[in-house]
Amino acid sequence: MEYFNFEELKLESGEKLSPVVLAYETYGKLNADKSNAILILHALSGDTHAAGPGGWWEKMIGAGKAFDTGKYFIICSNVLGGCRGSTGPSSINPKTGKPYGLDFPIITITDIVNAQKKLIDHLGIEKLLSAAGGSMGGMQVLEWLVTHPERLLSAIPIATAGRHSPQQIAFNEVGRQAIMADVNWNEGDYYSGPAPERGLAVARMVGHITYMSDRSMEDKFGRKFRDKKQLLKKFAAEFEVEGYLQYRGDSFVKRFDANSYLYITKAMDYFDAFHGKSIAEAFKGVKAKVMVLAFKSDWLYPTHQSQEIVKACKMGGVKTAYCEIDSKYGHDSFLVETEEETHLIRNFLKNVKPD
Amino acid sequence: MEYFNFEELKLESGEKLSPVVLAYETYGKLNADKSNAILILHALSGDTHAAGPGGWWEKMIGAGKAFDTGKYFIICSNVLGGCRGSTGPSSINPKTGKPYGLDFPIITITDIVNAQKKLIDHLGIEKLLSAAGGSMGGMQVLEWLVTHPERLLSAIPIATAGRHSPQQIAFNEVGRQAIMADVNWNEGDYYSGPAPERGLAVARMVGHITYMSDRSMEDKFGRKFRDKKQLLKKFAAEFEVEGYLQYRGDSFVKRFDANSYLYITKAMDYFDAFHGKSIAEAFKGVKAKVMVLAFKSDWLYPTHQSQEIVKACKMGGVKTAYCEIDSKYGHDSFLVETEEETHLIRNFLKNVKPD
Repeated sequence: MEYFNFEELKLESGEKLSPVVLAYETYGKLNADKSNAILILHALSGDTHAAGPGGWWEKMIGAGKAFDTGKYFIICSNVLGGCRGSTGPSSINPKTGKPYGLDFPIITITDIVNAQKKLIDHLGIEKLLSAAGGSMGGMQVLEWLVTHPERLLSAIPIATAGRHSPQQIAFNEVGRQAIMADVNWNEGDYYSGPAPERGLAVARMVGHITYMSDRSMEDKFGRKFRDKKQLLKKFAAEFEVEGYLQYRGDSFVKRFDANSYLYITKAMDYFDAFHGKSIAEAFKGVKAKVMVLAFKSDWLYPTHQSQEIVKACKMGGVKTAYCEIDSKYGHDSFLVETEEETHLIRNFLKNVKPD
Repeated sequence: MEYFNFEELKLESGEKLSPVVLAYETYGKLNADKSNAILILHALSGDTHAAGPGGWWEKMIGAGKAFDTGKYFIICSNVLGGCRGSTGPSSINPKTGKPYGLDFPIITITDIVNAQKKLIDHLGIEKLLSAAGGSMGGMQVLEWLVTHPERLLSAIPIATAGRHSPQQIAFNEVGRQAIMADVNWNEGDYYSGPAPERGLAVARMVGHITYMSDRSMEDKFGRKFRDKKQLLKKFAAEFEVEGYLQYRGDSFVKRFDANSYLYITKAMDYFDAFHGKSIAEAFKGVKAKVMVLAFKSDWLYPTHQSQEIVKACKMGGVKTAYCEIDSKYGHDSFLVETEEETHLIRNFLKNVKPD
């Protein structure tokens, strides 16, 4: 992991954040004319570690893989507001010498992308060959497309939305409420004491339900009991699906900061790839080639939202391909269906050439 | 509201609950041969007050309505384990003189229905003309069908399932975890202090998301802000959908007991209308006529679960009608689409006659 430090970021709100660190990892080698760089953008709970052992997109990035490190220079940075090396609410506020907590300013996907742009500038890259990511990563891809159209040749938004529906906002809000209901949250000022782990675990459990499909849960858990119908304790996890959710919740709190969860989910809810414009107008300045990927069983980011992105691209005169993949894994598909994605992305990238 | 007291209920677990009270309301008049009684069964958060001003099925029950009080004698009791007049975890445990809390025994839908049967016996009703209810009310309808087949002439399960899928269990489990994460929950022993209201509110918020459809949320809230983008406080409710969920959560805690929420949701998760038998065998002894109602946009209790009930009925030789209503309101449809339901139920009941 490397760190890129810079003095100041002017935020969409008008506030200034200073100083700023972005943590990032790179894979492969940047070529001489710096024309082979691909930016990988992570989802809500992701981090810099996209490739290599334990990487969240390990099967997609590496020698001979979709994002072939023999050909491309891959960059993945932790988002602004995160807790995996980049500046976020758990970072030290230089004004107080203590973690920001709720003194951290509200951030948006635009701010997250503007910080990434500074990193790309710093690496001397004029034009990205591509930007790709799923879920909130896909939102960043869209934001790159519309706010920095001259800085990338292609873009691959996956399992994402141009803007959150009220249902998506609602699921995020429930997660936030669960965190803020935790007595340890203490208005975000918990870094010197116990963290709001119970609340954050509940938020993560809600998330995991929305990441899977009805059918993939049925296939994986059915109505199986963990330990027959013997309860050691009333309301302990009894069905396998309950045990799974608790395990996921408990392991999440070890690596994620509750305040980051609040700030980042809020950034997702604010996001509007169309920036208040009509669908017909929104993507008019976009120069990159776009491939939109969606998954039929994804009910958190349903395919009609990807189709809306495609529509905006087409109406904006953008060269656009759209693939709807027949996967059963729900929203998780973008992390699971790597074989199908590899096939599609490899062929798409093959035809992306510097002007 | 009336109260039916009885000495003891033997539970499915083998434990005994004693004494027991069931709160209930009746509407209309029981005829001389006691052949016009219809049992209305409420959902998770329902209560005895089904008809009249503020009744949860007000539009369905009354003079000239689907459940016509000019013709029928309507009974609605609060479920065992509830907190609206019937014995539940907030009732006084005679052994300690204090509220049961987690000393209340685990109950099942079978226990809930067995308690209702005692009430029906007490009222001197040999055979119900019908039993009807939506969601968890529908589960009780199914349980009546299979465990007391000689006691009813017809049944109307609405927007329900023969057994919970892992996704349905998962949503309930998240609600339970939110309650148990609340520091005020105190292992269920909170009746002398503050109740776990924050946790219960979060549980209810999750519920409300699942009760609405993606589209009905879109129509009702869209991405509208409550008060422009002016935040008085960070992470306060800002989008209209957030304000709605918070309002629903906050009003729920005034009328519902958190421990009842735990016990009742668990009873739903345990429920298996087929009692471990094959679909072909499960409904073989059923004598009543059945009408199953489902709603296309209901993603919490998807139509394929109603179809499974219909299949079990058909394979069991039960006279069964199935209607899938094209409503946009999601699971809430069973409370909202009263016009369509009235039409269907009125005609169905017209043809239910004592042998």
